[in-house]
Amino acid sequence: MEGAGIPRGGDDLGHSLPGSRRGRPRSEEADRAILSAATQLLAEGGLGGMSMEEVAARAGVGKATVYRRWPSRGALALDAFLAEFTQQQPLPDTGTFRGDLLAALRAWIRSVTATPAGRMLAGLVAEAQRDPELAAAWRDRVIGPLRASNTILVRRAIGRGEIPADTDADVVLDLLFGSAYHRLLQGHRPLTDQFARRVVDVIVSGVTAP
Amino acid sequence: MEGAGIPRGGDDLGHSLPGSRRGRPRSEEADRAILSAATQLLAEGGLGGMSMEEVAARAGVGKATVYRRWPSRGALALDAFLAEFTQQQPLPDTGTFRGDLLAALRAWIRSVTATPAGRMLAGLVAEAQRDPELAAAWRDRVIGPLRASNTILVRRAIGRGEIPADTDADVVLDLLFGSAYHRLLQGHRPLTDQFARRVVDVIVSGVTAP
Repeated sequence: MEGAGIPRGGDDLGHSLPGSRRGRPRSEEADRAILSAATQLLAEGGLGGMSMEEVAARAGVGKATVYRRWPSRGALALDAFLAEFTQQQPLPDTGTFRGDLLAALRAWIRSVTATPAGRMLAGLVAEAQRDPELAAAWRDRVIGPLRASNTILVRRAIGRGEIPADTDADVVLDLLFGSAYHRLLQGHRPLTDQFARRVVDVIVSGVTAP
Repeated sequence: MEGAGIPRGGDDLGHSLPGSRRGRPRSEEADRAILSAATQLLAEGGLGGMSMEEVAARAGVGKATVYRRWPSRGALALDAFLAEFTQQQPLPDTGTFRGDLLAALRAWIRSVTATPAGRMLAGLVAEAQRDPELAAAWRDRVIGPLRASNTILVRRAIGRGEIPADTDADVVLDLLFGSAYHRLLQGHRPLTDQFARRVVDVIVSGVTAP
């Protein structure tokens, strides 16, 4: 999960997020209640602790209502995660490459350390290691759109002439978010602001060096 | 898992690897058979696919023999992983910071893409997200010793005057291995040699830049 600018609503991803449907206010209410219940359960016990039964009970709807909108637990967990995470990730535009990378990494760190998104994220990445279908959905619906969005930060810096035109945006994003994921998933060191600044400093100097 | 120089045998880690005990040749044979069976099962189906029963059956020993040496599945999986991975990770000493980082990253990539270690590694990291005991053992027995070992690469470069004395070794290792873990766990891009070279180029330039 890179931290920036997931398109709001689902259509831009080629997948409709149920919450974005129109003209069915009572369904939207149910959808919100279901996503909120799923978010709570994921934050409490990870994906293993989220059953469709419990989601339905906590949302105050029938199980059939949950299944009508989300055919599987993995699909619901993904949407719950996206709904939670999206609002927290701006696509920064500070005017400098350093400022943009730092703002994006800080927003990601804030989300995973101070909101339920951290536990949800770790749980989904873990589950994807043994569920190929979830892994594919994760790449298509989360990683793909987020990387496409964050690539804009790199392209803008190229456009401003701050970094070389042949800068490998994939490698930049892997360095930026991979190092942060590493601390989140391994837990060997904390995700501090000093960490964020040093990571960004190495990347910016490394990419702009002659 | 950083890729270099796990101390051979277990004593240097403060944990004895059963295979390194002396004077009990038949036990050592059983230990090797058990570790080898565990490695195969982990490679085939991850930690979820490795039961102590199956390990015993495949190793041709009784279940009690397995439990006598490894009290839990997580402990056995960790030792199997260490036994598999250790032999593949040299602590490089090429004479340059760039050479050392590249050799370490290449060895790691080779292990996770061309041997059972990749699947074992992904499975153990995934399992650690919901098993706090395994997470602690993973940090103490794998991440800790490997980072201590790889820190030597950074200290040598400081000693040669290649990089500043206040270089943050933790951040360097997070950038180097975090970006590679990211590709392994998310699967959005392949772990190519071009990737390794570009990651190392950004880090080396970024750390040595004035």
